[in-house]
Amino acid sequence: MTMHSATLAIDETLRARRAAGEKVLHLGFGEAGLPVPDSVAQVLSAAAGRNGYGAVVGSREAREAAAGWFGRRGVETEPEQVLFAPGSKALLFALLATLPGDVVLPCPAWVSYAAQTALVGKKTISVPVPAEAGGVPDPELLEQALADARAAGANPGVLVVTVPDNPTGTIAREEHLRAVCEIAERHGLAVVCDEIYAEVCHFGKAPSALGYLPERTVVTSGLSKSMALGGWRIGFARVPSGPWGERLMGELVGVASEVWSSLAAPMQAAATYILQDPPEVLDHIDAARGLHATVAAAVYERFTAAGAVCRRPEAGFYLYPDFEPVRPVLAARGIDTGAGLAAALLEEHGVGVLAGEAFGDAVGGLRARVATSLLYGESEAERWEALRSDDPLRLPWIAASLEHLRGALAALTARG
Amino acid sequence: MTMHSATLAIDETLRARRAAGEKVLHLGFGEAGLPVPDSVAQVLSAAAGRNGYGAVVGSREAREAAAGWFGRRGVETEPEQVLFAPGSKALLFALLATLPGDVVLPCPAWVSYAAQTALVGKKTISVPVPAEAGGVPDPELLEQALADARAAGANPGVLVVTVPDNPTGTIAREEHLRAVCEIAERHGLAVVCDEIYAEVCHFGKAPSALGYLPERTVVTSGLSKSMALGGWRIGFARVPSGPWGERLMGELVGVASEVWSSLAAPMQAAATYILQDPPEVLDHIDAARGLHATVAAAVYERFTAAGAVCRRPEAGFYLYPDFEPVRPVLAARGIDTGAGLAAALLEEHGVGVLAGEAFGDAVGGLRARVATSLLYGESEAERWEALRSDDPLRLPWIAASLEHLRGALAALTARG
Repeated sequence: MTMHSATLAIDETLRARRAAGEKVLHLGFGEAGLPVPDSVAQVLSAAAGRNGYGAVVGSREAREAAAGWFGRRGVETEPEQVLFAPGSKALLFALLATLPGDVVLPCPAWVSYAAQTALVGKKTISVPVPAEAGGVPDPELLEQALADARAAGANPGVLVVTVPDNPTGTIAREEHLRAVCEIAERHGLAVVCDEIYAEVCHFGKAPSALGYLPERTVVTSGLSKSMALGGWRIGFARVPSGPWGERLMGELVGVASEVWSSLAAPMQAAATYILQDPPEVLDHIDAARGLHATVAAAVYERFTAAGAVCRRPEAGFYLYPDFEPVRPVLAARGIDTGAGLAAALLEEHGVGVLAGEAFGDAVGGLRARVATSLLYGESEAERWEALRSDDPLRLPWIAASLEHLRGALAALTARG
Repeated sequence: MTMHSATLAIDETLRARRAAGEKVLHLGFGEAGLPVPDSVAQVLSAAAGRNGYGAVVGSREAREAAAGWFGRRGVETEPEQVLFAPGSKALLFALLATLPGDVVLPCPAWVSYAAQTALVGKKTISVPVPAEAGGVPDPELLEQALADARAAGANPGVLVVTVPDNPTGTIAREEHLRAVCEIAERHGLAVVCDEIYAEVCHFGKAPSALGYLPERTVVTSGLSKSMALGGWRIGFARVPSGPWGERLMGELVGVASEVWSSLAAPMQAAATYILQDPPEVLDHIDAARGLHATVAAAVYERFTAAGAVCRRPEAGFYLYPDFEPVRPVLAARGIDTGAGLAAALLEEHGVGVLAGEAFGDAVGGLRARVATSLLYGESEAERWEALRSDDPLRLPWIAASLEHLRGALAALTARG
């Protein structure tokens, strides 16, 4: 197998170009782009002496903190239902390795689900998302897709949903999530509900598959997005109570024990602190949520002003614009694929985005994922200022980036 | 698949018994059992602000430090040949997933190689180690074993060697390592040389497969054993230079990017510091090496005094005693397997060891792996004192543990 996570690859490419002195707007990578609060850094420091391997599942303290965290969000949870890992990506890998059957994905979907599915030797069944919001297959299409997949020799066993969604930055409608869970139940599918963006809804609260199929839904989450701790690699999963969940937990622990052993002990201490919802952490996440919402909305306006259609961002820091309405203009410039669109934006306009095909979308679609979270600043000082600002769009570095983007999109889509 | 790394499982079991108030001697787990030096803890603290995902392979600084570390040990290495991960276990998994073909293992071998091989859907070809030392297949048996495996439909592609070895605590003889590398070359096998114990040889220096098959040997290592940082999960691999190694690196990065993304950034900072070989780190490793050697030798004496045969420990903190000479005595007590031996030691004598079958050894062999590194103390203060002591065997808690062991083994093997 030869591959490299497309999101991580574009991050490395864009950083290398910038290091070489190129002026590149980095809209390619979903790093939350915010600094570490002092209180959290202090917890890590204080835990430096923790060097024992510890339990594969995570420490008692960390599991209790996670159980309480879920409980305060309306999901009653025992510590025994929680499994920590070095990132939710590792947990998703273990789930796809463990849960029997082929894997149903929304299209577009986060890049790693399909790659992990291939890595464990299973098939992907990709079903387009509804027009309203991404992260779940369109329920109108799902039943037929399952029948077609079975007819083609696949054995669908797992449905992955992303609520809120990456790459579209939207939140699945409750009626759609309910409908796909009902179909999953009818077909005996397990549901993996990736909720890593649940704490960064721009308003309100995202639904969860736990509301519709609690006994067969595994939730994955982590601190990479809400707390911008991607580089700390803290992920956790919640497995259902009852015999199905207990058996699955045993199998997940088996994979975990043979692939990564445990989440680093000092990181478990940090997770224990954060998941207790101390006020300073909640304030930090609130401020981050506001910044994400404001900047994503501004970027949305730049894309729609240039003629793209786009779902309005509702969570996280992504957009998924579609340049179909300006296809003739782009075609005149030799652009007729998402990859061509991304290449032109990067090579001619210094704007780095990731083509839709990385997310399983059609090669010929003029779509790309746009991540907005690396606009907050280059330095830690700028990022703190953005986080604390009442009007972050007027900060010079953010305003300049938005102007760079506006100019790039105007040039790309100008007629004649 | 249902499994749970046997070493991690016994650690959890024994810790639970102790937490419940039982007096149990924990000889079941290869945790190095030593505290974190202040200078290393300070580096982690200072790196708490590093929260970006960073490159999958590891930071430039960490890769340069690792390259220098290998270079000072006589192995010229470019930073591009180094890949970091959350533990060398994850790297071994990625190697077994990536390198084509079935997997040849010494017998006994560390528990996770065979489990990982099964996880990636490959076959294990298990070949007994020589009498002199473990970690490599007996070269006299390897050629025939490969022929037999091919005849049985397997396709051997990878040879794993452990130098120095876990579970035997010994160092493969140079002539044996050379001979198995020559056979590997003749049969087109890649060699994975697990060198995680290379810094804890009790005397002298261990050979490496790099000395005999440099262009097809991948070395894995980490800081869990030499620096007792198992709970920090810092591993790294060195891939050969040249086209074969470059292609392999690309494939490993693919797996890494889809399973764990990267080693946590603060841990990379710690690795960068440690791998530069600062004097206080080298002194710490020296002291640890002396303690491991002294205690392992004392435990060796207890086992041989009770009638077991055992290879004399040469590295790390393990022994692999064989109670075959006292089989009649044990048989009279109903013990005729390694698991029976381990169960009797635990249930009747409060001594936790891991039966040989966990390491792929014969079920009926009266062998077990004995880890000595959790004898150094319960508290951080005791562990520091053990590390600094000129005569650690006279420290009351170590002396008491050795006496507990002596009494247990005497009772187990007493006639009539």
